[in-house]
Amino acid sequence: MRPVRALRVADGRTTLEDVPRLEAAGEALVRVTLSGICNTDLELARGYAGFRGTLGHEFVGVVEDPGGGPLARGDRVVGEINAGCGTCPRCLRGDPRHCPTRTVLGIVARDGAHADWLRLPARNLVRVPPSVTDRQAVFVEPLAAACGVLERCPMEPGTRVAVVGDGKLGLLCAMVLRAKGLKPVLIGKHREKLVRARGVETCTLEARPADRSFDVVVEASGAPAGLELATALLVPQGRLVLKSTFHGLASFDTARVVVDELEIVGSRCGRFAPALEVLPQIDVDGLVSEVLALDRGVEAMERAAAPGVLKVLLSR
Amino acid sequence: MRPVRALRVADGRTTLEDVPRLEAAGEALVRVTLSGICNTDLELARGYAGFRGTLGHEFVGVVEDPGGGPLARGDRVVGEINAGCGTCPRCLRGDPRHCPTRTVLGIVARDGAHADWLRLPARNLVRVPPSVTDRQAVFVEPLAAACGVLERCPMEPGTRVAVVGDGKLGLLCAMVLRAKGLKPVLIGKHREKLVRARGVETCTLEARPADRSFDVVVEASGAPAGLELATALLVPQGRLVLKSTFHGLASFDTARVVVDELEIVGSRCGRFAPALEVLPQIDVDGLVSEVLALDRGVEAMERAAAPGVLKVLLSR
Repeated sequence: MRPVRALRVADGRTTLEDVPRLEAAGEALVRVTLSGICNTDLELARGYAGFRGTLGHEFVGVVEDPGGGPLARGDRVVGEINAGCGTCPRCLRGDPRHCPTRTVLGIVARDGAHADWLRLPARNLVRVPPSVTDRQAVFVEPLAAACGVLERCPMEPGTRVAVVGDGKLGLLCAMVLRAKGLKPVLIGKHREKLVRARGVETCTLEARPADRSFDVVVEASGAPAGLELATALLVPQGRLVLKSTFHGLASFDTARVVVDELEIVGSRCGRFAPALEVLPQIDVDGLVSEVLALDRGVEAMERAAAPGVLKVLLSR
Repeated sequence: MRPVRALRVADGRTTLEDVPRLEAAGEALVRVTLSGICNTDLELARGYAGFRGTLGHEFVGVVEDPGGGPLARGDRVVGEINAGCGTCPRCLRGDPRHCPTRTVLGIVARDGAHADWLRLPARNLVRVPPSVTDRQAVFVEPLAAACGVLERCPMEPGTRVAVVGDGKLGLLCAMVLRAKGLKPVLIGKHREKLVRARGVETCTLEARPADRSFDVVVEASGAPAGLELATALLVPQGRLVLKSTFHGLASFDTARVVVDELEIVGSRCGRFAPALEVLPQIDVDGLVSEVLALDRGVEAMERAAAPGVLKVLLSR
């Protein structure tokens, strides 16, 4: 039996290690087939939030032990990453995303998906339809985050909406909005990335639309300049959806927020069901820059941080 | 005939001047009886937004020339302060508060109410019922701003809501929320101000409730520390209503906004009708610190800026 490998971070160092095989311990055990590197992984590796453990929260895999849940051994699954207590008011309402004692796969106090195996509560797993490839399924988690924009900020048809930032998240947000019948404008710095947003109107920063011309702007650049641009693009009483965290504090012109009565809405994780539904309409394959074997995990993290690189996947 | 007086600001200097008598010029002419000094007046006097002209936007007065509107000469009135173009989509929807070419009484390109006379579009004037005293009526504008909180951020009964800041605006917001059946907690630094919020539960900063214990927090302190406190008090997916502008930029912990999916809602002016309706339930008299004659306008501005002082009114 080959050793169990895991891409782990501790004290700002990322290493591939052999680790003890996981016990189910009342949860489901999944053998990971493919996992995706997210910018959050890169931030966690740099020390964000003080995380120590196995990285990774985007995955597709095969159930090894269903952990008492309704799935069967051998089922192909993806998994919602927030694991709630199951008993607090938020969990009882069916939404563990804000459970105060939640753990989060590869992010908060729970080992993640860049490993041979992972463990999640059985209720977090969602079966993947046969028509969906592994390479598509690994995008369900970030796609759910993109779908979460509409959960937090519902939009009528005809809403003038822009997405600022042409990284993976910005591209997915723009494609999801397009798939949902809106006509987003994706604004970014890199022509070679913008073209990946299949079917979406795009423009570079230099050619961006006039200030105050959008009802909703999704900030997905993660840069203070992107936040400033996103705010400038909003009409009075417009809504700004914050998808990206920033390093440290970001400054806001609060006078503009008050005088123009803007609304700023934070958005983090989405639900998997709407993501699986919209997945066939989204060209996620176009977002894959490289696929590396898990053994090259440390190098893959470096590749994911390189300019111009979009999604880097880790195969087993 | 006595000269027409106006409290004017230019280049950071505030002076009481004799000015030419206003012409109606297609608008209504109002003889001002009583006007109130707002913190915005103090900011404008310090140079905020580059305003030059007559200060003042809180007033009650008597119609001298109805300017073609439905009111009659001698009617006692208050007036909505945003004067829209009347033809843009926002004005046509009946709301000039975000008309892109609006003027604003005593704030944007329009002489204000700290004068013997003022001019406003006839449609901006609202008749004051006989049961309402002048001293109450002069609070309709700031009370409308407080009511605006509920317009921008509707709250179900039982919503846990706090107001941060025990200045005039914070006190009014707390009293309006109470009058609307909510049970706000008003948090401030000054016991002698907190007691003016008749019927409202209050507490000092030292005795404030635990972090993450409010569904909605209204930020009315205008201080960066108040903003930080307001954010800390919110539960995940809580709503922060920004009522105060800050001097310069304020910093936000955007990671908190994203991870806890907070919502930040800017709120500026309210409508007068709901304010007049709630006015009888609000003890606005308790907010008046001093009444000075318009001739002492410059001194009144200094008084309004002094520690511990709430509303300063200017009589004619």
